[in-house]
Amino acid sequence: MQRHFLAAALMAAMALPAQAQAQAQTEPLQIREVGSLHVGGRIATLEGLPEKEITFSAGAPPTRMNPNGEFQVEQMYAQYIKLANPRARYPLLLWHGGGLTGVTWETTPDGRPGWQMFFLRAGHDVWVSDAMERGRSGWARFPEVLPGEPIFRTMGEGWGLFRLGDQAGWNREPAKRVAFPDSRFPLPSWDQFMKQGVPRWATTDRQIQAAYDAYVQAACPCVVVVHSQGGNFGFTAALNAPDKIRALIAVEPSGAPPQAADAAKLKDIPHLVVWGDHLADNSFWSKVRANIERWQGQIRAAGGAADTLDLPAMGIRGNSHMLMMDTNSDEIAGRVQGWMASKGLMK
Amino acid sequence: MQRHFLAAALMAAMALPAQAQAQAQTEPLQIREVGSLHVGGRIATLEGLPEKEITFSAGAPPTRMNPNGEFQVEQMYAQYIKLANPRARYPLLLWHGGGLTGVTWETTPDGRPGWQMFFLRAGHDVWVSDAMERGRSGWARFPEVLPGEPIFRTMGEGWGLFRLGDQAGWNREPAKRVAFPDSRFPLPSWDQFMKQGVPRWATTDRQIQAAYDAYVQAACPCVVVVHSQGGNFGFTAALNAPDKIRALIAVEPSGAPPQAADAAKLKDIPHLVVWGDHLADNSFWSKVRANIERWQGQIRAAGGAADTLDLPAMGIRGNSHMLMMDTNSDEIAGRVQGWMASKGLMK
Repeated sequence: MQRHFLAAALMAAMALPAQAQAQAQTEPLQIREVGSLHVGGRIATLEGLPEKEITFSAGAPPTRMNPNGEFQVEQMYAQYIKLANPRARYPLLLWHGGGLTGVTWETTPDGRPGWQMFFLRAGHDVWVSDAMERGRSGWARFPEVLPGEPIFRTMGEGWGLFRLGDQAGWNREPAKRVAFPDSRFPLPSWDQFMKQGVPRWATTDRQIQAAYDAYVQAACPCVVVVHSQGGNFGFTAALNAPDKIRALIAVEPSGAPPQAADAAKLKDIPHLVVWGDHLADNSFWSKVRANIERWQGQIRAAGGAADTLDLPAMGIRGNSHMLMMDTNSDEIAGRVQGWMASKGLMK
Repeated sequence: MQRHFLAAALMAAMALPAQAQAQAQTEPLQIREVGSLHVGGRIATLEGLPEKEITFSAGAPPTRMNPNGEFQVEQMYAQYIKLANPRARYPLLLWHGGGLTGVTWETTPDGRPGWQMFFLRAGHDVWVSDAMERGRSGWARFPEVLPGEPIFRTMGEGWGLFRLGDQAGWNREPAKRVAFPDSRFPLPSWDQFMKQGVPRWATTDRQIQAAYDAYVQAACPCVVVVHSQGGNFGFTAALNAPDKIRALIAVEPSGAPPQAADAAKLKDIPHLVVWGDHLADNSFWSKVRANIERWQGQIRAAGGAADTLDLPAMGIRGNSHMLMMDTNSDEIAGRVQGWMASKGLMK
């Protein structure tokens, strides 16, 4: 009941003026700077590993390689695009989920502009990062530096976990795959989407968090948008630097801080949680949602704001876990934008 | 002798008007679109590997993981920034070298705008890619999919190989490192630069090339700038699609096609090779240069153009292998830009 009430209230607040939206789609972006940086990390030293002889490129002479020495490890990468005249008060940081990179926020797998472009057009300086160990952040030798071993996501696991359909609906042949009838994911682009996947570890949360904390120090004050596994990292980053994060938008976050006492530390940071459809059809996501609602309740009990954008409750059906790529991705971004405006985050 | 003559002739042709340069540094960029895509790759199937139970995020319920199934592998990532009104005839594709990613071309390790920004300001649509297996391209399980094993570059190996100084000048303590006295690399940012490094294989040239060939089909006709290991991939991409590549700019390429007969296929593609300093001080780079000059000679013998921007011969001393990050990176980019203009590649 509470969810439905909030959804209706937000719906009214969130519509972007149609004229501004149409104009924003056609005019060139006025960009001050495109750039990037690596933050965090440390130097690790390896010793006692055997030498090897390697030919690095066809035609080049062989080189003797000693794998021992000093290595830069556990840093993370972020790219920023700064507008000449941002209309947002703070830069917007987009944090991806597990097994993925910042590409999550870029062009959708079927070739439409993604949330990076949407929020640039909406007036934000936009920062897109890759978590430690993923994408352009690089990864270190394992198990010597990164503990454990990497995990590679199958195309079939993604189908169920990201709620394109039931897990049983996966088939290696595209014509035989069964999606939810109302799915908004651009289904013919599923294989293309899976090209965005990268290996990840399940044993490196501490190192990922440390890099995110360094990132917040470098790029904030800011507004952070997290997705999926990024939820835990975003909530914890806010606990570690509550003065740096001015709002937290959690798109289908997969985790939240376990300690109720922590909620009070975030009571001055407005929260928005965004849910797609078919969570109740999936035992994993049902449990995840209950845990996030526990955390939202604790933030509200501490006097904070923890709103919910429950798309099915608003009559918007069929969104997958990758809702920033679904066919109505701009509509959802527009509602997130409206929420930010309602919280005074635009000039 | 021939090198010095060419260098002098190019020097005259390459100065950018100072007024245009100053204006370009201050006005906002007019950007039509920022986007990205993955190209190439294939689906690999793994079978017979044991199941595991994994907790993907702290607080999330454990998931049973079957590592068998279908995987998207061997694709590559590219990001494009398209201008509202490009002044270049073709998009400019920047291909990085070994153990690195497209970050090579972005902000320098000491925080100055890199060649991505320079060439955007000079009027090019700029595409920055990550080779297969590196950065946002992702990497696949080994040795089941990618043969062999990854190589991790030490900070010390980079110091010598990238010609900051002699290999013997490396020391883990920054104050004790000995660089060439005239080095133009921003030396205090060496550790920061090493954060850009990623693992690479020495056994995957075929897969990397296949992805680059797919990239050329998706993004070209174009002008390609290659660096270091990217040289082989760029020359071979041109051989595989000579109608798609309108000029090849090879910054310190580490290899070139071995067959003299291939040179005739590239005779209509203007080539520019750019060399930094201290190649003669390094046995690896001396051999590399001789091989590249052999290839340039073969292109010229076939009636093609293979120019050289030999910086030391022009009195510009101290450039490292990472000359797009050296303190005079913009000056070198300006001369490359001048060469492109002289070849009719600007409108």
